[in-house]
Amino acid sequence: MTQFMNKRENIVTEAVDGILLASGGRLARLDGYPHIRVVLRADWDKSRVAIVSGGGSGHEPAHAGFVGPGMLTAAVCGDVFASPSVDAVLAGILAVTGPAGCLLVVKNYTGDRLNFGLAAERARAFGLKVSMVIVDDDIALPDLPQSRGLAGTLFVHKVAGHLAEGGADLAAVTAAALQVIAGAKSIGMSLDTCTVPGSVKENRIPKGKAELGLGIHGEPGVEQIGFTSAEQAMAAMIAKLATVTDDVPYVALLNNLGGASVLEMSVLAYELLRSDLGGRIRFIVGPAAMMTSLDMRGVSISLCPVTPEIEAALCSPVDLAAWPGCHPALPAKVVALPDGLSPIRPLPSEHKATHDFVLRCCQIMMAMEADLNALDAKSGDGDTGSTLASAARALIGAMGQLPLADPTQLFRAIGLELSQTMGGSSGVLLAIFFTAAGDAASGGLTLRDALRAGLDRMQQIGGANLGDRTMVDALMPALEALDDGLLAAARAARKGADHTATLTKAKAGRASYISADQLSGHNDPGAEAVARLFESLTA
Amino acid sequence: MTQFMNKRENIVTEAVDGILLASGGRLARLDGYPHIRVVLRADWDKSRVAIVSGGGSGHEPAHAGFVGPGMLTAAVCGDVFASPSVDAVLAGILAVTGPAGCLLVVKNYTGDRLNFGLAAERARAFGLKVSMVIVDDDIALPDLPQSRGLAGTLFVHKVAGHLAEGGADLAAVTAAALQVIAGAKSIGMSLDTCTVPGSVKENRIPKGKAELGLGIHGEPGVEQIGFTSAEQAMAAMIAKLATVTDDVPYVALLNNLGGASVLEMSVLAYELLRSDLGGRIRFIVGPAAMMTSLDMRGVSISLCPVTPEIEAALCSPVDLAAWPGCHPALPAKVVALPDGLSPIRPLPSEHKATHDFVLRCCQIMMAMEADLNALDAKSGDGDTGSTLASAARALIGAMGQLPLADPTQLFRAIGLELSQTMGGSSGVLLAIFFTAAGDAASGGLTLRDALRAGLDRMQQIGGANLGDRTMVDALMPALEALDDGLLAAARAARKGADHTATLTKAKAGRASYISADQLSGHNDPGAEAVARLFESLTA
Repeated sequence: MTQFMNKRENIVTEAVDGILLASGGRLARLDGYPHIRVVLRADWDKSRVAIVSGGGSGHEPAHAGFVGPGMLTAAVCGDVFASPSVDAVLAGILAVTGPAGCLLVVKNYTGDRLNFGLAAERARAFGLKVSMVIVDDDIALPDLPQSRGLAGTLFVHKVAGHLAEGGADLAAVTAAALQVIAGAKSIGMSLDTCTVPGSVKENRIPKGKAELGLGIHGEPGVEQIGFTSAEQAMAAMIAKLATVTDDVPYVALLNNLGGASVLEMSVLAYELLRSDLGGRIRFIVGPAAMMTSLDMRGVSISLCPVTPEIEAALCSPVDLAAWPGCHPALPAKVVALPDGLSPIRPLPSEHKATHDFVLRCCQIMMAMEADLNALDAKSGDGDTGSTLASAARALIGAMGQLPLADPTQLFRAIGLELSQTMGGSSGVLLAIFFTAAGDAASGGLTLRDALRAGLDRMQQIGGANLGDRTMVDALMPALEALDDGLLAAARAARKGADHTATLTKAKAGRASYISADQLSGHNDPGAEAVARLFESLTA
Repeated sequence: MTQFMNKRENIVTEAVDGILLASGGRLARLDGYPHIRVVLRADWDKSRVAIVSGGGSGHEPAHAGFVGPGMLTAAVCGDVFASPSVDAVLAGILAVTGPAGCLLVVKNYTGDRLNFGLAAERARAFGLKVSMVIVDDDIALPDLPQSRGLAGTLFVHKVAGHLAEGGADLAAVTAAALQVIAGAKSIGMSLDTCTVPGSVKENRIPKGKAELGLGIHGEPGVEQIGFTSAEQAMAAMIAKLATVTDDVPYVALLNNLGGASVLEMSVLAYELLRSDLGGRIRFIVGPAAMMTSLDMRGVSISLCPVTPEIEAALCSPVDLAAWPGCHPALPAKVVALPDGLSPIRPLPSEHKATHDFVLRCCQIMMAMEADLNALDAKSGDGDTGSTLASAARALIGAMGQLPLADPTQLFRAIGLELSQTMGGSSGVLLAIFFTAAGDAASGGLTLRDALRAGLDRMQQIGGANLGDRTMVDALMPALEALDDGLLAAARAARKGADHTATLTKAKAGRASYISADQLSGHNDPGAEAVARLFESLTA
């Protein structure tokens, strides 16, 4: 079992019930389980022409997903890839058809033609006005007199549904449907076969190949071609479509056959619209999964010539999640980057005491490089010392450009410097610490409170709390003790750092992936760095 | 190459361009390719609070698909499964943030927290009001202090976006987002891993197993469990959710992780709403692919407690194809089957001439059983004779119930009888022939014209034209000659039937699958049956 299903024989009734339950009461079904599976609009009053479609299941959201105001009135759901019975179709027709009559939209497969056709005859014997159109948009085999119905069927649903909703009579709705069918052309391509419920998947398409010109029932495509890229795949489909298109504006429907990722579909939309055909595409529907072949990793493109009437019908909005809308194909809008990405470096300024203090801190950091690396090697990749020392060296190198006389600007400048020169999470976290402290200082806070604000923000972003075996375990007690002097801060930092050797369940940072045995007895290198910095400053 | 993509390094920019091109001009992007990939509302005027989200790509339609009025203002797109850079996030913030400020909605992954966090700091240094919330809805590991952000993020996008669109201030939007985050709980399950672009797919999950409690980056789930059915899979997820839910009403979001078919997702919706949790689900979003893990055949369920404010925000419609809407979870509406499915059999009536004629036709059919079977064996499965003879025997058996005195009703009754007793396509086609002829006769047409109308309908449904090597090749000329008498009709039928022996390219019906060599020199059995019937009637 490789699919989310229960018993094979219940898959369609369960899926139909799922659709109903998630429809917010907008859909209903006929009481004909297990064989009659008809989904219909719950609000339908038979006052207008009914649009009924359906066929085998496995093409979801077609057809039940398109039942709603402005598209289908009812969908008759057969078993997976099998036509519904005559009785099921007849039940659907009888349930929704009033004096205005009913249009059946049928994809061109023998079973569907016959069963919908006979059901139509039976319904006519009840005095109902029923017309039927057969969609044959597939161009895979140009010489085949019986082209298959593919995703171009959606054009018919939308146009006929729009007109019917607006009160057009059966003749007008049927004529519009026939006009759409006459112009609709589709081609499909797939990189993989589909998984038919309850059957073993046929791995027919070798790697590096694609099938071109396929249907929606897992049958082989007309040809296997080499597959190298989305661009080449699109070009192959466009070449097929070029043989049947004219120099007129089109609406293109880009359909996911089920298993292509949304990311891939967006790449294909890009390729479609920049293809040789792109200039003639005035409107686009999708990309979206509309007429699927279960989970087939494939795509189909359907085209329909645009007339003002077809444009109005296709672009008219409907409140159906399965219909992605029909939008004009316009060039991509590109907006200039905002100012501010290249940080405005504050004017350098001199302040001897600050210069000396920063220099001393950096020298302390550089001096502990080897010790911290050795400590980090116990629980990590042994580079904490080098990371901090590199940042310190870079800061010394940048000293001449720092706004040393302006504490707020200095914090921000240090933050910027660290974010650009110090790798890994710790560089970003220290940058956040200093930048947030700078913001807080500009708001008039004391140095201690500004640093506390920086720590708060760093904790919020980094997610580390006291006891999580990070630098926070030394920095937080140090800052809290800072009002009592640097010596008190250094003692608090040391106590906190040493405590980390007993914290064997790291909850944040890289050490959270390390076993307790490896951590036990060793201080966290970040906390140790903080403790050594404060201790060295008081020495 | 097994995916629709071009160069690995261009996949995100090409996908973003595809999204833009298909957006109908409603989306724009910043001019920062290749590293800055920010999608924003083309209509944004900075008059309200901006909602910015994003993260790694590979989760489409999240996040760019949710950019639009009432949801996101901008989406910052990283590389596949990789956080966007600080500069990219900052560009997004600066591009859309006005005096009302900006809310960053960030999923709880270290890279995203840090990069969005530092970008927020930088933006604040420009005097912008920026708040940031971190979504951590994953419940796979209840003890983990750093829960991942999953599809519950969509709740935050929708609620925050709705409030911001309505003019709420940053504090109110942030508070609402935090309230949603506090209540949002998600669990994921998958039957297969995802295919990371440019990487070999890891086949980690054996057949018959599912991974429970997984993230959205292809990482292994918390546990592998046995998988037997959709019902059992849903129960396993519900059991996890039961440990963190209360007895309050919820909205459930049913998310396709990318590779489950739409059919499967509907089955899962059915199972979700009839599960132990179903009674507490008041609203449902989906099923739909909203926060995917590329093409992973998996699903996630996200829950959020419903308050009146959250209900209003989630249910408010937005014009975004990626958002499936939030609908009340209501019982399935079941409508009684319409009358008319059990055909009303016309009252039997007697008419000796008609009785004798029908009987004679049936006897003729029965007499040619062996010959037609032999002929059919040349090009098919050798049962045409038996199929017709069986139908004839059934018709004789039903003779006492036929409305022999009413030609219209008789045609319809014969059609019904044939559709029920004669197998295969030919049974349905002859049923359509007789039923349509009956309808035409009821409209006042002559017998010949009624039969012609039946033939027209049969051809329309069956798709066979003259020359397609079917019974039409004898029936059409026979009906056309019928005005000149039965003998003329018989001659025309014979000529047409014999002509089929030269038609070696069958275009309709089963013989279209047979080679020319096999067909040449043999009459089509259907056409032969028609010719023999007419000939025998004149004998």
